[in-house]
Amino acid sequence: MAGAALALSFVFVVSFLAVLLSWRLAKFVMKQDTGNASMQKTAEAIKKGGEAFLKRQYKTIGIFTFITAILLVGLYYYFGDVWVGVKTAFAFVIGATLSAVAGIVGMAISVRANLRTAAGAYKSMPEALTIALRGGAVSGFLVVALSLLGVAGIYVLFGANPQETPFHIVGFGFGASFVALFAQLGGGIYTKAADVGADLVGKVEAGIPEDDSRNPAVIADLVGDNVGDCAGRGADLFESTAAENIGAMILGVALFPVFGVSGVLFPLVARSFGLIASAIGIFSVKAKENENPMKALNRGYYLTVLLSIIGFYIAVKVMLDNVWFFWAGVTGIVLSLLFVYITQYYTEHRFRPVREIAEASKTGAATNIIAGVAIGFENTGLPVLSICLALFFSYLFGLMSGVPHGGLYGTAMATMGMLASAAYILAMDTFGPITDNAGGIVEMSNAPAKVRKRTDQLDSVGNTTKALTKGYAIGSAALAAFLLFSAYLDEVSKLTGKAFEVVNLAKVPVFIGGMLGAMLVFLFSAYAIRAVGKTAGYIIKEARRQFKKKGVMEGTVEPDYAACVDITTRGALRNMVLPSLLAIFFPIVVGLLLRAEAAAAFLMVGTIAGILLAIVLNNSGGAWDNAKKHVESGAHGGKGSDAHKAAVVGDTVGDPFKDTAGPSLHVLIKLLATVTLVMAPLFL
Amino acid sequence: MAGAALALSFVFVVSFLAVLLSWRLAKFVMKQDTGNASMQKTAEAIKKGGEAFLKRQYKTIGIFTFITAILLVGLYYYFGDVWVGVKTAFAFVIGATLSAVAGIVGMAISVRANLRTAAGAYKSMPEALTIALRGGAVSGFLVVALSLLGVAGIYVLFGANPQETPFHIVGFGFGASFVALFAQLGGGIYTKAADVGADLVGKVEAGIPEDDSRNPAVIADLVGDNVGDCAGRGADLFESTAAENIGAMILGVALFPVFGVSGVLFPLVARSFGLIASAIGIFSVKAKENENPMKALNRGYYLTVLLSIIGFYIAVKVMLDNVWFFWAGVTGIVLSLLFVYITQYYTEHRFRPVREIAEASKTGAATNIIAGVAIGFENTGLPVLSICLALFFSYLFGLMSGVPHGGLYGTAMATMGMLASAAYILAMDTFGPITDNAGGIVEMSNAPAKVRKRTDQLDSVGNTTKALTKGYAIGSAALAAFLLFSAYLDEVSKLTGKAFEVVNLAKVPVFIGGMLGAMLVFLFSAYAIRAVGKTAGYIIKEARRQFKKKGVMEGTVEPDYAACVDITTRGALRNMVLPSLLAIFFPIVVGLLLRAEAAAAFLMVGTIAGILLAIVLNNSGGAWDNAKKHVESGAHGGKGSDAHKAAVVGDTVGDPFKDTAGPSLHVLIKLLATVTLVMAPLFL
Repeated sequence: MAGAALALSFVFVVSFLAVLLSWRLAKFVMKQDTGNASMQKTAEAIKKGGEAFLKRQYKTIGIFTFITAILLVGLYYYFGDVWVGVKTAFAFVIGATLSAVAGIVGMAISVRANLRTAAGAYKSMPEALTIALRGGAVSGFLVVALSLLGVAGIYVLFGANPQETPFHIVGFGFGASFVALFAQLGGGIYTKAADVGADLVGKVEAGIPEDDSRNPAVIADLVGDNVGDCAGRGADLFESTAAENIGAMILGVALFPVFGVSGVLFPLVARSFGLIASAIGIFSVKAKENENPMKALNRGYYLTVLLSIIGFYIAVKVMLDNVWFFWAGVTGIVLSLLFVYITQYYTEHRFRPVREIAEASKTGAATNIIAGVAIGFENTGLPVLSICLALFFSYLFGLMSGVPHGGLYGTAMATMGMLASAAYILAMDTFGPITDNAGGIVEMSNAPAKVRKRTDQLDSVGNTTKALTKGYAIGSAALAAFLLFSAYLDEVSKLTGKAFEVVNLAKVPVFIGGMLGAMLVFLFSAYAIRAVGKTAGYIIKEARRQFKKKGVMEGTVEPDYAACVDITTRGALRNMVLPSLLAIFFPIVVGLLLRAEAAAAFLMVGTIAGILLAIVLNNSGGAWDNAKKHVESGAHGGKGSDAHKAAVVGDTVGDPFKDTAGPSLHVLIKLLATVTLVMAPLFL
Repeated sequence: MAGAALALSFVFVVSFLAVLLSWRLAKFVMKQDTGNASMQKTAEAIKKGGEAFLKRQYKTIGIFTFITAILLVGLYYYFGDVWVGVKTAFAFVIGATLSAVAGIVGMAISVRANLRTAAGAYKSMPEALTIALRGGAVSGFLVVALSLLGVAGIYVLFGANPQETPFHIVGFGFGASFVALFAQLGGGIYTKAADVGADLVGKVEAGIPEDDSRNPAVIADLVGDNVGDCAGRGADLFESTAAENIGAMILGVALFPVFGVSGVLFPLVARSFGLIASAIGIFSVKAKENENPMKALNRGYYLTVLLSIIGFYIAVKVMLDNVWFFWAGVTGIVLSLLFVYITQYYTEHRFRPVREIAEASKTGAATNIIAGVAIGFENTGLPVLSICLALFFSYLFGLMSGVPHGGLYGTAMATMGMLASAAYILAMDTFGPITDNAGGIVEMSNAPAKVRKRTDQLDSVGNTTKALTKGYAIGSAALAAFLLFSAYLDEVSKLTGKAFEVVNLAKVPVFIGGMLGAMLVFLFSAYAIRAVGKTAGYIIKEARRQFKKKGVMEGTVEPDYAACVDITTRGALRNMVLPSLLAIFFPIVVGLLLRAEAAAAFLMVGTIAGILLAIVLNNSGGAWDNAKKHVESGAHGGKGSDAHKAAVVGDTVGDPFKDTAGPSLHVLIKLLATVTLVMAPLFL
């Protein structure tokens, strides 16, 4: 057990240091220059709006969390062991709380880093880039470190029995995905309703440019970038890392006879090495004034990946001493690189897909949409093939290890490999809303052209990193899913005392379960997309009302930004409830009616459908966005041409796809897994 | 065996009579009035275009069929028994040929009935309705009767051994779906490329109305309705009934100890009763001048359903003598009614979904598309729930029968029940292109307003019946799929000599198979949709060229319709090849690499994804179409308003969804099943 104590100490020390690092980065950001008064005014409005949304959102989430915790205890009491129920509910609340803390702190920094990045852009590109990236890294490190601390902490608290405890911390994962669903869905609805509403009422109806200070919805739009991309995606990756840790620990239990406690604690140690790699990667990023900032970010990413591989090798060597698991982990790392390349191919204007959409805009909005949908469907091919290959090879490497159950443990290794660079990726992702906001702040303060050029360039890099993170998130969700299926089967086996290894789709009830799982994915997406339309409708109504007031359109009277922020907040919160409850209760109903095997099929087929639809929605949205930008840069007639109008339609359609429904599906997939894990005792 | 001889004789007599009836109906249509010279000229152009397309299309299909037959013999020779290979290839060719015959004859009548319906509309509504419906019924009876004759004929030819022969006629089903795929996909690409091309170049660019004789693409558009809806859907239902018969006969083999030969031949007898019910239904339809023609068609449908139930009861009583199977059959019949209602709810302007889309058109094309996609995703809910309930109850009734393996046979009964009214449904479907064409012919001949009002009304009824048929086709495909899964498992069991009853999604290779199946569905749809865009591009280019010629735009020089028809034909045929080959070879590759169990998962998860995506594509397309019509009827500003322009975009986007990709997915689902059935010996 000395090895166990050593491993746990290592995990605690590294994650504690990562929290400290996060604090240092926040202090670095805070001490930067805050620019002129006009910029500060805009930033203040964004900050107020963002904080108001988060406050109300987490209040709602808090109430639901409380009710669910009580229900969990009650259900376990009714169906089985109340003591397990209390433990599960406790872990659930801790998971939810830590996720909330990471989200709130990350966003508090994000709405401050935006102003400082804008001020930095007045001086030089490297300065702005450094501030934005370090601001993003606050979120990145906090999210990964807190999820690690949470899992490790509860493991110790619940007795650190390597063959029992992993099953008792599934509540932590459920809590994390519970919060993630609300955060990503609520934030996603907010950001896109504000974006669509502001665009339709400003650019289309009133004919004023984007981010124009006369538009009453402009602040809501800027707030939206923070609550959707920063708070939402942070919660998403918090739960990814948490769920993956727990799932891998449960698989480790099956290998206890071979590896002892090392197999159970390996996931936590591997993650700690990933944190170290990411930290070095972040600090290595140095931009040059006349270089594309994406190149600097890529250099940092490649360094992180390289260090992750080395760290993974050390962890495998010391704890498992079987090189095949190292290769399985490398498979996951390769998959993350593949996803980055594929996402770039499908969403960047340099390649065929985006050009095809831009070209189709010449014959109008209809052909633009048809081309975009065709690209969206087509682009499931390469990512799914990559996932299948990664699963296959990591499984094969696991089998070659010669360890019993080694195949599944191999797929777990791939997931750990893929998630090793999570902190770096998340930093790049949160970089997105910070630079986007910086651009808005600069735009509204009538800054000189040179400064705007810098923020425009950073903003465009931010769009790319956001798209990449989404690709990464779905790829890791797909790998983690298989891990979580296996954890579910292991848990049911443990509960019933006999091996549950077969999910037979040829049985009618099991097939029905699978079909319902796929249906849920479509239904959930429908509600998410519709919620954006509804909420955007409220904003349009309010902005129209304000435009009618004297002086607003002329720019002499300042519009009532707060009213739009408030309406968006209420609309997003109201409309996130129905799809969230559907996602949580539908799997429980299926499990109760059709039992454990059908619930497994529900989870598995639902996951397949979710992965595919998320890829379709994310990448078609990204491609539409960049097709519009490609036209704006002068292709097919440039700004103001008919092709441009058609491309704008495509971009608007893509908004709720790529920023609301798509990312929420990542969370849904993992929620399905954690909810079935937690509810498994009820399905027997 | 006296019972077997009696049953087979009954099947032969009924299907022979149905062919005769089809011949009588054709003669009835041909002897009707053919209107004035201008109408005849248009009709002649459509006829020539349609026949030219079919000729070339079936030539292409013929070549592929020949190659595939040779390959089949070769593969069976290499992997197993060459004699089985010859039998399979023979059945394959017969299936393909009969499907082609049904398609060619049906379409030959359809392109003649259109003119006579138009002439009938000059006289009265009931006259036009009767001609159109009986013209459609030629296809309806021929398709169902030939598929029945084919299966029964090969059964007798191959020795009529009830425990062996059903396995040898799977080639017939493969031949049928092989042709159906090309016919539906090629026809679907043709019809929508012509439609989108004609609309974009005519309505949008040149500003002339639909079906205007100055538009060079107008004849291609009218031809398209025939080749897509008539020939394509006919081939689709030909294979549905064929595959369902074969699958149910194979299940019947498993019940041989209980029912003897009756269980094997029951599907054919039940189908014969359905033919009788449909014939009576068709002849009962009598329209009144001032009544909505849909009501008359519905009365006929309800009568058909009622008679089908009675026929089914007699068949069960005489052959199986177990009332539970009757109830399982009724479950299928109820499902067909449910699908009709649900499809109406989601695609008719009277209900919320279409109104929501029309309402969203007020804020532009983007919100129209977002609303339509949300409705499309949402509308997977009720159909999938209905399918699940039907599967569950028919399985339950089957279990209650007390017969071993009764559960699966119960689901087979539901499929038979659902397909009992196939001939009537198909008549209603082919009614669509006939009335659509009649409207075009009348429009181009400058007929009086009274006549145009009649054809407009018939055309709108035709749109509804087309939407209903698609719902029916997908519902029956979903039920039949389960039948075909089971047939596949039975076949593999027979080949290996040990029970193959488990498709374990928890195994990595099996899960990968499932994931690839779902991916194929998206990829196939992408290629189908893109093919429409590409082919429409050729048409637009050609029409633009012609518009530049002097006199075309002024209406003094007749455009070169034949050139557009020719270009569409070549474009559609060229672009149907890639997705078709993908659909045929991908499952074979998966089966060869990952083996039989993964191939089963491929088939099952692919089917689930296919059903869902087909529902999304079909119904969102239908809803967009009717939202546009709703706006045109005066809502939200009526024709020419901004809302109308937005609604037109939605309608155009929906075209390739509902008439190309969606219906082709029905075929794909069944093709996956028949291809795995035929290739099963290679996957072991």
